[in-house]
Amino acid sequence: MNILIIGGGGLIGQKLARALAQNGTLRGVPITQLTLADINDPAPIDAPFPVATARCDIADPASVAATVTDKIDVIYLLAAIVSSHAEEDFDAGMSINLFGTYNVLERCRILGTKPVVVFTSSIAIYGGEAVDPLGDHSYPNPQTSYGAQKAIGEILINDYTRKGFIDGRAFRLPTISVRPGKPNRAASGFMSSILREPLNGQRATCPVAADFEHYYLSPRKCIENLIKGANLDAADLGQNRVMQMPGRTWSIGQMIAAMTEVAGPGPATLIDWTPQPDVQRIVSGWRWDIHAEKAKRLGLTADDSFQDNIRHYLTDDKP
Amino acid sequence: MNILIIGGGGLIGQKLARALAQNGTLRGVPITQLTLADINDPAPIDAPFPVATARCDIADPASVAATVTDKIDVIYLLAAIVSSHAEEDFDAGMSINLFGTYNVLERCRILGTKPVVVFTSSIAIYGGEAVDPLGDHSYPNPQTSYGAQKAIGEILINDYTRKGFIDGRAFRLPTISVRPGKPNRAASGFMSSILREPLNGQRATCPVAADFEHYYLSPRKCIENLIKGANLDAADLGQNRVMQMPGRTWSIGQMIAAMTEVAGPGPATLIDWTPQPDVQRIVSGWRWDIHAEKAKRLGLTADDSFQDNIRHYLTDDKP
Repeated sequence: MNILIIGGGGLIGQKLARALAQNGTLRGVPITQLTLADINDPAPIDAPFPVATARCDIADPASVAATVTDKIDVIYLLAAIVSSHAEEDFDAGMSINLFGTYNVLERCRILGTKPVVVFTSSIAIYGGEAVDPLGDHSYPNPQTSYGAQKAIGEILINDYTRKGFIDGRAFRLPTISVRPGKPNRAASGFMSSILREPLNGQRATCPVAADFEHYYLSPRKCIENLIKGANLDAADLGQNRVMQMPGRTWSIGQMIAAMTEVAGPGPATLIDWTPQPDVQRIVSGWRWDIHAEKAKRLGLTADDSFQDNIRHYLTDDKP
Repeated sequence: MNILIIGGGGLIGQKLARALAQNGTLRGVPITQLTLADINDPAPIDAPFPVATARCDIADPASVAATVTDKIDVIYLLAAIVSSHAEEDFDAGMSINLFGTYNVLERCRILGTKPVVVFTSSIAIYGGEAVDPLGDHSYPNPQTSYGAQKAIGEILINDYTRKGFIDGRAFRLPTISVRPGKPNRAASGFMSSILREPLNGQRATCPVAADFEHYYLSPRKCIENLIKGANLDAADLGQNRVMQMPGRTWSIGQMIAAMTEVAGPGPATLIDWTPQPDVQRIVSGWRWDIHAEKAKRLGLTADDSFQDNIRHYLTDDKP
């Protein structure tokens, strides 16, 4: 089993690589090779099988051809320009999120090796006039270019699969929380930072009210689901290879109460409640009444409680 | 009002051009120039305003740049590789239907002139796991590459509009019947030929049973709707610029009965009922429980009866 993770230098790519190293198998077959590819050299990981790192610019077909070889059995296509970046730089979003995805799929078509391709889409494809509740069969009416590019990626994954060029699976990821690392400027940043910074003993700002609801998944569960996603039998996937990855809807108040239950009353006192109208304007359009029927039927799961999200952060990620 | 019809040599493009010539205005403004562009030189039409013809290969950005100038106010983007062609030649379908659409939209973005763009999508975007009844907010799960490429075009029209690069409108065309011209090899060919050939005094073969249902619109109504589509006020279009164009669901038996009512009992006797399992297999996956709520609310209409479809053919198209 020869695996390629495109976007192997990112948070999900690195965690996925470590999980694969721990498991040693994928799709019931021992892993013989793992390649982590990214726009910059990904950090190597320790594994009981050979791990290579490679630079790959998916916007460049030649770079894709050098990275995606006929030896690859499973491709995780995680690389993307994130939401706010794609909104600010339309060209960058199109070239990475749309044409990068196309370049990888075209390379597979030319190779004729029909690899399993696991593609990460996003709940950003929901929006606009799409009607609640949202899920596998909702109309994609994204209100960001990132969401539009992911929605297009989904259609490509389905059509390349239908044509027999790949064995594709696409999962709409919930917002990941608690996300480790540094605060960033993403509008969703507070959905991790109001927990992560206090758990690390630092102050954080909550720009929305405690009743703000959103749809979340822990990094650990996301990785579990991405591995299950590759393991799924094509025969069980039907005519639509795209599905919502399970998450759960929580309010900010519930998330903070879960933190207090797990870590005591201290962290919550480090949160400054400072309404930020610009952030509120963006995230108030985000959707949360989301349901993952197909993925749940296929055995993918969400976190049991937000207490678990907190525990996973403390166990897996707290510096 | 300077109008460009890309796909101006095709059935819809030519009929649209003649209707614009007759009307003399679009969006309430006198037409001062009409350009018909197509991969081959389109036939010129008579009009009370200047009409130019141009060769344009939308797969080639330089050709698009030469055709789409900053003088254009309204672009009809009708050019496409049809369903069976795109299914047989994946590259051709992608380069015209996906990248051709992208090239036109990108040209608009670069120009910065924000033209009205009227894009023809198709009921081919429905299929697979999409749940009946189908309409504006159905999940696009196309089972042809043509349908996938049109579904991607819809998403691009919405995002380029949201970003302010164009003022886009996309309409999912029903199957057009009665379509004039020669029989073709398309799986849908019989949906016109079993009426057209008998009305022309020739024999035709019906490959499906009389209870086969599908969703139809006459060429005349399609043109009316494409003109109304350009006339629509952006403020009335909401967050989703994509909509089903109204059509009506008829069985083959109803269509033939309508022909008999309008043209007498003779034509129906020219139909040979010869089941063709290969055609049946393809068209049995096609969807017909389709509803055009938004377009109807905005004033677009379907034919009043299939008798009208027959009459329109006899008036407009019978040789």
